[in-house]
Amino acid sequence: MLKEITGGITAPQGFKAAGIKAGIKKSGKEDVAIIYSTQPAAAAAVFTTNIMAAAPVVVSRKHVAGGKASAFIVNSGCANACTGEQGMTDAVAMADITAEALNVTPEEVLVASTGIIGVTMPMDKVTAGIHSAVKAMSVEGHQQAAQAILTTDTFLKICAYEFELGGKTVRIAGIAKGSGMIHPNMATMLGFVTTDAAISAPALKQALSEAVGVSFNMVTVDGDTSTNDMVGVMANGLAGNPVINDTTGDDYQAFKSALTTLCTTLAKLVARDGEGATKFLEVNVCGAASFDDAKKAAMAIAKSPLVKTAFFGQDPNWGRILCAVGYSEATVVPEKTSLAIGGITIVEKGLGAQYDEQALRTVMADHDIVVQVDLNVGPAKATVWTCDFSYEYVKINGEYHT
Amino acid sequence: MLKEITGGITAPQGFKAAGIKAGIKKSGKEDVAIIYSTQPAAAAAVFTTNIMAAAPVVVSRKHVAGGKASAFIVNSGCANACTGEQGMTDAVAMADITAEALNVTPEEVLVASTGIIGVTMPMDKVTAGIHSAVKAMSVEGHQQAAQAILTTDTFLKICAYEFELGGKTVRIAGIAKGSGMIHPNMATMLGFVTTDAAISAPALKQALSEAVGVSFNMVTVDGDTSTNDMVGVMANGLAGNPVINDTTGDDYQAFKSALTTLCTTLAKLVARDGEGATKFLEVNVCGAASFDDAKKAAMAIAKSPLVKTAFFGQDPNWGRILCAVGYSEATVVPEKTSLAIGGITIVEKGLGAQYDEQALRTVMADHDIVVQVDLNVGPAKATVWTCDFSYEYVKINGEYHT
Repeated sequence: MLKEITGGITAPQGFKAAGIKAGIKKSGKEDVAIIYSTQPAAAAAVFTTNIMAAAPVVVSRKHVAGGKASAFIVNSGCANACTGEQGMTDAVAMADITAEALNVTPEEVLVASTGIIGVTMPMDKVTAGIHSAVKAMSVEGHQQAAQAILTTDTFLKICAYEFELGGKTVRIAGIAKGSGMIHPNMATMLGFVTTDAAISAPALKQALSEAVGVSFNMVTVDGDTSTNDMVGVMANGLAGNPVINDTTGDDYQAFKSALTTLCTTLAKLVARDGEGATKFLEVNVCGAASFDDAKKAAMAIAKSPLVKTAFFGQDPNWGRILCAVGYSEATVVPEKTSLAIGGITIVEKGLGAQYDEQALRTVMADHDIVVQVDLNVGPAKATVWTCDFSYEYVKINGEYHT
Repeated sequence: MLKEITGGITAPQGFKAAGIKAGIKKSGKEDVAIIYSTQPAAAAAVFTTNIMAAAPVVVSRKHVAGGKASAFIVNSGCANACTGEQGMTDAVAMADITAEALNVTPEEVLVASTGIIGVTMPMDKVTAGIHSAVKAMSVEGHQQAAQAILTTDTFLKICAYEFELGGKTVRIAGIAKGSGMIHPNMATMLGFVTTDAAISAPALKQALSEAVGVSFNMVTVDGDTSTNDMVGVMANGLAGNPVINDTTGDDYQAFKSALTTLCTTLAKLVARDGEGATKFLEVNVCGAASFDDAKKAAMAIAKSPLVKTAFFGQDPNWGRILCAVGYSEATVVPEKTSLAIGGITIVEKGLGAQYDEQALRTVMADHDIVVQVDLNVGPAKATVWTCDFSYEYVKINGEYHT
């Protein structure tokens, strides 16, 4: 019942955004984004599990603990990671400066950064950039905001839906930034979601956690978990639906479903725009003993350089796929494991099947390819999205010199 | 006190070997190897942890349980993996045919295979090949044997030492085959060790397990664990040293030390010959809370495609190295973590250090590079060997079509 709509991150009522050029990026492109809710919003966020978490992650984790927010302030071009005490001071300052300009408390501002690791923030440019962004904020600014959070992504990642909740029309929208370390020293998958749904902070937190678990957390480009990953959501309640508190009710389910679809759409865009990608791969594992097992098997396939280079070479190399399943640590019985690529059965319960080689060549030449593994040992399933591994990946990541 | 000697796998007393062309490989190169001990030998072996273990792994695991062996029979060109019941029948037959030709029991024969996954063995060629190999066996055949276990390795991996044990001169030797899946559908790291030391099977098993733990298990090319990995050892006692039974004694330590050095030398050769490698990387992690932690951190660095492409590009991209340490699941305190590349300190307790950029460029241009991470949280350390990630890797693994 979701309806896709235009308007991006400011499509929900009561949100403004801007993306401006602060001069942090050498390219001169947009590099400071602000997303602002005119009404204080319930807020939730999930962060990288990397112990080397960047300063903005530390600050935002603290601020979001209060369960409310008025703004996301985001810069690209500098990750503010591995920057020690100065980095913490700068991340705190970014929240303070934004809060003062918006007349809110610093705790209502969530900070995110992406870019070069190990370099301290050019705070003069950042400060001026925040002031410019606050002045520039508008409902029309959503596209510039989506642009300003990118590093070398090749396209904007924007998604917005409308749906009914408790008799009211509710909107939910998001923008994202590609995963993978798109330049040397560049990092980070970022996602920002806005909605005018009315929902309590604890319910929002749980919905985000569940949605991210089957969307952003199911994307891999090169298996590296960045220092700066963050997905945040603000829900300002302006849609006027009855406030969602009960996480067992229908309204919660409807909201979570919309949020999950939104996050999944954004996550798939991230995989599709992986570094040097020439293929978009959907890896489905079913028949697993548990969701964790299904995810382990799917991730092992999606992360294997051998599998990824085979897809780049359009080689239906099923031995590598089974091999990855075999070391995934999922419960696997070789004699029960089946594999299909693009709907063509390649392996039937552990044994190579007869298949139409020409049909398989056609599948392997497609841009979008579905890999389906049936472990045949249980009821659970999982889907992971990834891309192939190309010369261009090596070029992007090896030929750039810091 | 180890002295490097020539003579390869037949340098220890009482061993013969051969490598012959059986026509299993399309290239027509050597593809069946035999290594034979004229005296029944104590034997031990370690195998892949991949659940999709190939048929020869299943057979050899069973045979070596008895603790003795007379021969390794090895073929390249076909992995006999994912081949179901027919594969098991064929692997059993390989042991049976070899045993009959040598006049030993099938349980004294360990079988290993490497090559294409999912294709059944051309048993007519294999059978003829085994008979030819048994006929061709000699002390001089060691080099052909080292050749016949290879797939697309670019050089032979041979190592032999002499040392004193209980007043006797003992020899230990080994050959290995490169890790990484060197062709599409090709797999496997193989290692075969011979020694004329006298040692009980339980002591040999423990020594091999400990030696492999810090040598072959510390090599990664692309992070994929093959279906066919195996390292085996035969010890025939002809050196006449007092039999080693006691794993707490000096003789055991001396033997284990020699075996460890041998396995480490072979393992480093494997990393050096990784697919498309242009760099040989030694990753040392010290100051860890435990060996497991040190290994986790070192492996995370060595397996990261981002780190590996950076070394290919000669880019001293330390943010990626710290990022990998951060997601390694080792106990890490960012403010305590230090990093040096080629002896040049880049990060000192979490913060970027001042360093001579020209000196670092010189280090990065070297073929052999040492990465040193000090976690500064404990006494443990570990070393992992790997190679970089080049265009050639993508080419080898993506452009070959099955």
